[in-house]
Amino acid sequence: MAEDEPVAPVPEGGEPSKKALKKQLKEAEKTAKKAERKAQNESQQTSNDVGLDISLERYGQFDMIQSKEQHEERKFMHVKDLNPTVADQTMWFRGRVHTSRAKGKQCFIVLRQQSYTVQVLIAVNEKISKQMVKFCSNITKESIIDVEAIIKTVPKKIESCSQKDIELHVEQIFVVSAAKSQLPLQIEDASRPVTESDENSLNIRVNQDTRLDNRVLDLRTPANQAIFRVEAGVCKLFRDILTKKGFVEIHTPKIISAASEGGANVFTVSYFKGFAYLAQSPQLYKQMAIAADFDKVFTVGAVFRAEDSNTHRHLTEFVGLDLEMAFKYHYHEVVDTIGQMFTELFRGLRDNYADEIVAVNQQYAVEPFKFLDPPLKLEFPQAIELLAESGVIIGSEDDLSTPDEKLLGKLVRAKYGTDFYILDKYPLAVRPFYTMPDPNNPKASNSYDMFMRGEEIISGAQRIHDPDFLTERAKYHGIDLDKIKAYIDAFRYGCPPHAGGGIGMERVVMLYLGLDNIRKVSMFPRDPKRLTP
Amino acid sequence: MAEDEPVAPVPEGGEPSKKALKKQLKEAEKTAKKAERKAQNESQQTSNDVGLDISLERYGQFDMIQSKEQHEERKFMHVKDLNPTVADQTMWFRGRVHTSRAKGKQCFIVLRQQSYTVQVLIAVNEKISKQMVKFCSNITKESIIDVEAIIKTVPKKIESCSQKDIELHVEQIFVVSAAKSQLPLQIEDASRPVTESDENSLNIRVNQDTRLDNRVLDLRTPANQAIFRVEAGVCKLFRDILTKKGFVEIHTPKIISAASEGGANVFTVSYFKGFAYLAQSPQLYKQMAIAADFDKVFTVGAVFRAEDSNTHRHLTEFVGLDLEMAFKYHYHEVVDTIGQMFTELFRGLRDNYADEIVAVNQQYAVEPFKFLDPPLKLEFPQAIELLAESGVIIGSEDDLSTPDEKLLGKLVRAKYGTDFYILDKYPLAVRPFYTMPDPNNPKASNSYDMFMRGEEIISGAQRIHDPDFLTERAKYHGIDLDKIKAYIDAFRYGCPPHAGGGIGMERVVMLYLGLDNIRKVSMFPRDPKRLTP
Repeated sequence: MAEDEPVAPVPEGGEPSKKALKKQLKEAEKTAKKAERKAQNESQQTSNDVGLDISLERYGQFDMIQSKEQHEERKFMHVKDLNPTVADQTMWFRGRVHTSRAKGKQCFIVLRQQSYTVQVLIAVNEKISKQMVKFCSNITKESIIDVEAIIKTVPKKIESCSQKDIELHVEQIFVVSAAKSQLPLQIEDASRPVTESDENSLNIRVNQDTRLDNRVLDLRTPANQAIFRVEAGVCKLFRDILTKKGFVEIHTPKIISAASEGGANVFTVSYFKGFAYLAQSPQLYKQMAIAADFDKVFTVGAVFRAEDSNTHRHLTEFVGLDLEMAFKYHYHEVVDTIGQMFTELFRGLRDNYADEIVAVNQQYAVEPFKFLDPPLKLEFPQAIELLAESGVIIGSEDDLSTPDEKLLGKLVRAKYGTDFYILDKYPLAVRPFYTMPDPNNPKASNSYDMFMRGEEIISGAQRIHDPDFLTERAKYHGIDLDKIKAYIDAFRYGCPPHAGGGIGMERVVMLYLGLDNIRKVSMFPRDPKRLTP
Repeated sequence: MAEDEPVAPVPEGGEPSKKALKKQLKEAEKTAKKAERKAQNESQQTSNDVGLDISLERYGQFDMIQSKEQHEERKFMHVKDLNPTVADQTMWFRGRVHTSRAKGKQCFIVLRQQSYTVQVLIAVNEKISKQMVKFCSNITKESIIDVEAIIKTVPKKIESCSQKDIELHVEQIFVVSAAKSQLPLQIEDASRPVTESDENSLNIRVNQDTRLDNRVLDLRTPANQAIFRVEAGVCKLFRDILTKKGFVEIHTPKIISAASEGGANVFTVSYFKGFAYLAQSPQLYKQMAIAADFDKVFTVGAVFRAEDSNTHRHLTEFVGLDLEMAFKYHYHEVVDTIGQMFTELFRGLRDNYADEIVAVNQQYAVEPFKFLDPPLKLEFPQAIELLAESGVIIGSEDDLSTPDEKLLGKLVRAKYGTDFYILDKYPLAVRPFYTMPDPNNPKASNSYDMFMRGEEIISGAQRIHDPDFLTERAKYHGIDLDKIKAYIDAFRYGCPPHAGGGIGMERVVMLYLGLDNIRKVSMFPRDPKRLTP
C-alpha cells in the first residue's frame, strides 16, 4: 500500500490509473462489507419481528477494527466541544455508553467521553426501526460506540449530563468494543461524592482495593481523569519552571552497585551472576553532575523504598522530582530557588488546571490550597516555639514526629494563612552525615524540609562538598569509609558548593488536591501488599 | 536568622534597630575573617620573600564555603556573556582552572565555565605581588576559583580560548575548591578531536572505561557538556510535542509481579518475603491507560533488560520514551502521529541545539542528520526488494538482522536522502502475540519499526484490543493464559483500537549525533559488566 503514502517530499507525480483502480477496489470491498454486515444483523434478529428491518445498515456490531478502512469521510466531534452554535449539524461521536434506558419506542443513552457526557436519543421513526431501538437498549454499559447524530438543542436542561443544552438524535449507531455485562464496579458508584448522603439511594461506596483491583474501570471516573491530568501538570510545571531557570534534565541509574544509605530499606536485584540494588534516591548522581559542571540539574524518575510502611502516604515505588544546584556563597540561593519554584507551580496548577481541580472537588470536597508569594520560611526553633505555645514540647535536637508536623501545619495555617512553608535549619543530629553543619551554631545544620498541608514533601540540604570534611563527618557517624569511597572521590577534583532536595511527586499531588491517600494519586500504586495490576 | 527572611507577604514593617545591629555584627565578623585570612596567607609564605606582601588580602584559599556569608555585593558574570561592549568593567567570575602557565612575573590561567574559556592574566604590578603570582601558578588544574578582574579587549586573537577577543586582568583571586594535583585523565586529552593527528604531539586518547570510571572529570569536556544538553532537549521536545497533540503524561510501575514477556531477560527483585521483577516495558500500563479513557498517553522512564549483550547499542537500563494512542479506524493515524513527532523533534534539535551539535561535531566529526517532512514510509516488501537489489536475499517472513538494517539504512539514504524512515507491515511471524494481524494479508501485521542511520529506535504496532481474539492469538503462540490473565482482562470492559511504540531515548541521541557507542550518551551507563559509578 506504500504507493498511497508520500514516499518522498517531492511534488505529487502520482499514478492516477493505479489510484483509480484502488478506489474502485475499495468501493467493491465496501459493498461486500455492507452485505456481510446486513446478513449478520439479520441473523441477530431472533425477535418476533419478521418484517423487513428498515434500519439494517444503520446499526450493529462493527467487526473488530483491524485497520481495514479509513472512513476519512466521517467527521468526528468531541462531546466537550458541543454547543448550541453547532445545532442541526450531523456529526460522528465515539464514546462509552455511560448509562442507557429504554422507554417504549425510545432509548436514551448517556454517551461519555472522559469526563464529558451528552444525552443520545434513539426513537422509532421513518428511518429507525423498533429493532434498532431494541439493539441500542441492549448495548452494555461501558461499551464503546460510534454514533452518527444530528445535534439538537433541548428546551429543558438535561441535569444528568455535562452537556445540558444539547441532545444527539441518532442516525447510525455501531458498537466498536463491547463491555462485559457484569462490571466489578459501577462508574457511578466510584464517582459518588464523599459528602453525598441521599437517604433514598443505596449510597454505595467503592472501597480502595476494589478500585485498585479494577483500575481500568476506576480510572474512568471524572475525579480520576482529573487527578492524573493534574499529576501530569505537576511534572510539566516542575520541569518547565526549572528549565527556564537554567536547569538541565539528567537521567540517573536505578540499578546501583551499593546500597546508598547503609543498606536499610533497599531492594536487592539479581544482576547476572551477582547482586545489585534499587536506588533509594538519585542524590549521588545529581551531585556528580554538579561536580561535572552541569551547575543546575533536575531529574524525574522512579525511586524505591523497601520500607514495610502501610500508611496513607508511603509507597515502595514513587516518582521523585529531584533537583541539585551549585551556589555561590549561601545555600539560601538554592532554598529561595526551590521556594520560588513551588510558588510558580502552585500558581500554574491554579491557573491552568482549574477545571480538573473543580472535578476532583466535586467528588472529594476539600479546602482550596493556600500559598504565599514569596513563600513563608521559618527556622526550626520557631517551629519548636509554635508547638510549645500549643503545649507540645520538642527538644532542640529532636526531629519532628508526623503528628508534630501535622499540628505544626495547622498552627502555621492559622497564623500565616498558608498551606506551604519552608522549615530551615534542622538540628544537625537528625540529618545524614553529608549535611553541611551550620557555621554559626554547632547543633544546627544547613538543611530544610518543606511542607504542604502539614506533611513533608521535600527534604534537602547543603551537601558537604569538601572531601576531607566529608570523610571526617562520615567517620563521626561511624560509616564504613570503604563503602562510600566513590561518593567521597567525586569531590576530589574540585566541586562547587551545592544544595538540593528530593520531592515526592505523588505527595505534592495528594496534598495539593487535599486527598487522604497516596494510592489515589498513583496510577498503579506499589506498597508492601500490592504489586498488581 | 528568620527575621531577615520575609515571613509573610506583608509590606515590610521591619525591625531597623535589629537589622542595624546585625549589619554591625557582620562587619565585625568580616574584619575578623580578614585578619584570619591574612594570618593564614602569611603562614603560607614559605618562600624567601620576607618583605610585606602588598597583595595579602587579594588572594588565597577560601575557607570551605559553609554559607556563612552572602557576598551580595559581588557582581558575577558568565564567561559566555563576555564581549567587547563590557570592556573595562570589573566583574567576578567563578570557574575552573583549565590550564595555567607561569612566565616570569606573569601567570596565565585559562578559566573554564562549562564549554566556555577565557584567558586570565595575573602580572606583578603595584597591587599584585610576586607572591600572589606564584600562588596563582600553583593552583592545580580543575580547581574552582573566584576571580575579580577587569575585562580587557586584546589586540591579537587568543586562539586557545572560546573568548578570543577578551582577557581578564586579575584584581583578586581565591580558591573555592582545590582539585587533587594528580588527575586520572586530562580534560584536554578527553576533549581531543577523533580526527586530530598532530605529529608533534602525543595525541593521547582516553579510552571508554577510563572515561566512565572517572565520569565526573570526563563529563566536563565540551562534547559531553553538549551531548547531555542535547539529551535533555530530546526528552523536552518529545514531551512538548506530544503534550501539544493532546497526550497525557503518565507514570508506570517499574516493579511488577509477573515477567511481561515470558520471563526471559528479566531482572528479579526480592520484594519483602517474595519476589518481583523489573519492567522491560511500560506497555501493559500504557494500554490500561488507553482502556481507562486517557486516549493518548506517553511516559518517560527507566526500562530494564537483563540481556547479556555487550554491544555498542545495548544497555541493561535505559530511558524509554513510550507512547500509546487510541485511533478511530486505522493504525496509520498513530504511525503518522509518531512520524510527525520525529520530524518536529529533529527540527527542534537542529534549530534549538545548534551550538551543542557543533560542539559534539568538533570532537566527533559526523555527517549532519538528514530527515524529510513528511517522513519516508516504506513497507516491509519494499525493504526486501531494496536489499535484494543489493544482493541480500531475505525471506518474506523473516526478520531483518542488524547488518541487514544497517545496509538498508545506507540504501535508503542513497535513494531517498533521509537518515530517518518508517518501515511498516512487518511479517506477523516475527512480532509478539498481541500484534494485530494485517486484515488484507495473513502473513503481514499492523506493525512498524522506525530507523535512524540504519538502526532501530522504535518498535511499535496496533495492539489487539479484542479480548477473545487476543486469547486466540496467545494460544496460537503457546502462551500460558494464566500468566497473562490480567493483561487480557484489561480489555473486557470496552477498549478502543490503539497503537503505540517504545523509543530508546539514548539510541535517538546517539544516532542523531552520529556517535558510535551508547555509553557516550548515557550519563552513568549500565551494562552486564558495569554497575559503577
